[in-house]
Amino acid sequence: MKLQVDINCDLGESYGAFEVGNDEKIMPYITSANIACGFHAGDPITIAQTIALAKKHRVAVGAHPGYPDLLGFGRREMQLTREEAKNYIIYQVSALQGFAKIYGVCLQHVKPHGAMYNMAMKDKELSKAIAEAVKELDHDLIIFAPPKSVMAKIAAENGLRVAYEFFADRAYNPDGSLVSRKHACSIIEEPKKVVERAVQAVKEGTVEAFNGEVLELGKVHTICVHGDTPTAVELAEALKKGLAKVHIEVKPVSQFI
Amino acid sequence: MKLQVDINCDLGESYGAFEVGNDEKIMPYITSANIACGFHAGDPITIAQTIALAKKHRVAVGAHPGYPDLLGFGRREMQLTREEAKNYIIYQVSALQGFAKIYGVCLQHVKPHGAMYNMAMKDKELSKAIAEAVKELDHDLIIFAPPKSVMAKIAAENGLRVAYEFFADRAYNPDGSLVSRKHACSIIEEPKKVVERAVQAVKEGTVEAFNGEVLELGKVHTICVHGDTPTAVELAEALKKGLAKVHIEVKPVSQFI
Amino acid sequence: MKLQVDINCDLGESYGAFEVGNDEKIMPYITSANIACGFHAGDPITIAQTIALAKKHRVAVGAHPGYPDLLGFGRREMQLTREEAKNYIIYQVSALQGFAKIYGVCLQHVKPHGAMYNMAMKDKELSKAIAEAVKELDHDLIIFAPPKSVMAKIAAENGLRVAYEFFADRAYNPDGSLVSRKHACSIIEEPKKVVERAVQAVKEGTVEAFNGEVLELGKVHTICVHGDTPTAVELAEALKKGLAKVHIEVKPVSQFI
Amino acid sequence: MKLQVDINCDLGESYGAFEVGNDEKIMPYITSANIACGFHAGDPITIAQTIALAKKHRVAVGAHPGYPDLLGFGRREMQLTREEAKNYIIYQVSALQGFAKIYGVCLQHVKPHGAMYNMAMKDKELSKAIAEAVKELDHDLIIFAPPKSVMAKIAAENGLRVAYEFFADRAYNPDGSLVSRKHACSIIEEPKKVVERAVQAVKEGTVEAFNGEVLELGKVHTICVHGDTPTAVELAEALKKGLAKVHIEVKPVSQFI
Repeated sequence: MKLQVDINCDLGESYGAFEVGNDEKIMPYITSANIACGFHAGDPITIAQTIALAKKHRVAVGAHPGYPDLLGFGRREMQLTREEAKNYIIYQVSALQGFAKIYGVCLQHVKPHGAMYNMAMKDKELSKAIAEAVKELDHDLIIFAPPKSVMAKIAAENGLRVAYEFFADRAYNPDGSLVSRKHACSIIEEPKKVVERAVQAVKEGTVEAFNGEVLELGKVHTICVHGDTPTAVELAEALKKGLAKVHIEVKPVSQFI
Repeated sequence: MKLQVDINCDLGESYGAFEVGNDEKIMPYITSANIACGFHAGDPITIAQTIALAKKHRVAVGAHPGYPDLLGFGRREMQLTREEAKNYIIYQVSALQGFAKIYGVCLQHVKPHGAMYNMAMKDKELSKAIAEAVKELDHDLIIFAPPKSVMAKIAAENGLRVAYEFFADRAYNPDGSLVSRKHACSIIEEPKKVVERAVQAVKEGTVEAFNGEVLELGKVHTICVHGDTPTAVELAEALKKGLAKVHIEVKPVSQFI
Repeated sequence: MKLQVDINCDLGESYGAFEVGNDEKIMPYITSANIACGFHAGDPITIAQTIALAKKHRVAVGAHPGYPDLLGFGRREMQLTREEAKNYIIYQVSALQGFAKIYGVCLQHVKPHGAMYNMAMKDKELSKAIAEAVKELDHDLIIFAPPKSVMAKIAAENGLRVAYEFFADRAYNPDGSLVSRKHACSIIEEPKKVVERAVQAVKEGTVEAFNGEVLELGKVHTICVHGDTPTAVELAEALKKGLAKVHIEVKPVSQFI
Repeated sequence: MKLQVDINCDLGESYGAFEVGNDEKIMPYITSANIACGFHAGDPITIAQTIALAKKHRVAVGAHPGYPDLLGFGRREMQLTREEAKNYIIYQVSALQGFAKIYGVCLQHVKPHGAMYNMAMKDKELSKAIAEAVKELDHDLIIFAPPKSVMAKIAAENGLRVAYEFFADRAYNPDGSLVSRKHACSIIEEPKKVVERAVQAVKEGTVEAFNGEVLELGKVHTICVHGDTPTAVELAEALKKGLAKVHIEVKPVSQFI
């Protein structure tokens, strides 16, 4: 069987007059869009425009809920109770669902944003909040999570489909977590290297950590490219073409999971 | 045929640790709850709790979207474009819909909050934003609007059902608008007087303005009581009993409109 | 020499239409007011009114800066960088200083709020952020901190005066931290018990932890009463009278530190 | 006597991860910086960095308070009471004063932002709120206002110095107000034209409205260039050089008013 993979990107992160990202330019090269829901970024008009844009490019849409921390862009750890986290996610994903319905598209997935995603990799209570929120809203929604993470495990235990995610443009720690954005080496900007890493992840299920150690990822379903890196568009284009070149089919994850 | 009317109240207006209202105490006496959606008041946990509480009391639930002005409780006029207003409403109503779905209840209505409601009484562009947002999300949703208002007219033109609303505990200006909350006489707290006004509005379709002039309201479907007045619970109880006493049936507006 | 102590209370926590606390009723019984600065609670009008009220009652005013988390009332841990924390504190204390100047009063102290206070008890980087922000703004400002805390130690190292604070109405863990608000036994509401604890803390410098263990506090300069407990006013009154009865003089901490 | 004029620009408008403007590049060409205060844009770290940058370039700093509407960037009309407006301005300007003090610079001026500025051109109550807030905080602060505006008149009546402002890169209506940003022709991007307009305004005190009519401005003290137009840096440079070429001295307004 032909190898298949999804390319996802965080989009719709503008907030009113604060414009972020290269959404229009990056859309042609991705297959799934993670759309900010208004807590850490995004606003109602941006949500509407991003869904319309995704639809035009036949890109699958997902909700990208985050912490209620616009000033920190959802990248700072916050200690929420399970009840808080669960209801914040329900609120954000529901808001997205309404717009999706109006634009005649189906919400494909939910990917927690920023610090919520990072914390859920290891945090059981938060992972349960995420899984329960999604399950109660729509058990057909796919959760994007790192392979072998607590979040992936608990989502699966709740009967949800999980797309294992690989970060082609981010450096990995030997424990499988991402190198913090505070470090200079955390972002990989060189397209050639990003493509090589992606191909290796899809074909062999491995990645080289920043210290040279080889990590076993297992199956990878979706590759994340960040829309806010300077070379994002170039990188997404290189990725899409590079994967095609080695006969890996790039399509929305809901079509093959 | 027996006369019928709905009693509605603004609920779910707490925001995190900021607690507002007497939701638990007032629920037994109302038939429709207008639930704040997080912009001017309300938060995800409060929304969940308020819907659960309404369900328990067989009170119909509606969305109460407002301006993005938590500091002003949505009571200050803001000049939004039609696109802004429309998408802000879609966002808020969608968020409510998700919670309603989880709790197994149907959203019955949408009632714009505060300054948005007051401005929409006369503002065509804003009224179109409201009607279009609701129609696109779910054309079975009922819009709460003052009789003879621009908002009511435009909602009807868009094929939506409109529940004409009467404010039993607020003083009216001769032009049919409410006396501003800035004036001492704007709130009517005496239960006996509130009941008399409600009965007159339902039976005769009229109300006496603050200057004694009698206004023709026409048909009245729903009576608003404010949950934040000191005598709110007493007043809601008096209203429910007072209407029953004169053989006016009190039930959710979706059952008779 | 006569024993002296200050009674402080968190005030000015209303936010627009969201009213919190019993500020007017509690003012006669306290000597220092910690005024919320708009991040976790408080707004410009509330700040102005609270300073005016404090002045009228000859209560000393202080800034009560918190995390930028209105939805969580600043009670949730957030991971800020030292630069973020420092500048957030400068911003909030500066805002208070402007109002204080207009009302012709001197800012007496700074007390970090909620999770910021709790985290700073043990966190060096955060404590440095607090001390540096205060020192750079005005090195005459007194910092309120728990005795023996990292926050107290670092403030002193920066040449700032520190008022050691005792929580008369909160239960203590054996390590000197407060029992979390999530636990039922965290708040002590009985006035007689609160007074006894305060007298013991001032006279003997000790407190009994929830498990009966006796903790050495050392010198105590200021006693905190919470304005949002149901019995807050009664409790503050009992405290002021109870301390006077045993000849402990109650006055603003700047008068004796 | 040599003609003199100030060049001002709105700076410090980033908000957390949302980056706005070209502050570093534009600083060499201006003499006064209007710094956002956190309500419509700006955050504590950005304020600190912008003041430090201004100091380095010997650019005078001012506060740029706006409406509490981050989502609308303070550009939407809001109906505030005079008490709300006054206290919102005190809060924002005070916050700036604290940072200015720490960086060892003096706040030179206050310029209301966006919709607040536009509304104050004609609104007496709002203009009184602005003048009173500034006067009570520091009567040496200069107010930036359009010539002949209600805001300028009321500031002067309150004993404040007023710098009459000219918008070199914005089209004027025949009544002296600015053409709304909603119109395509509202922004003038061509540097040559901007310089010509500025020279005419300073030398002759006139400007040509969009319909060709010549408006009498009277004395002009400061010229505004917008930092967010695509050609902002090029334009500011052209302006500074163009004015120097015709022997108009460019310096902070506090040095010649």
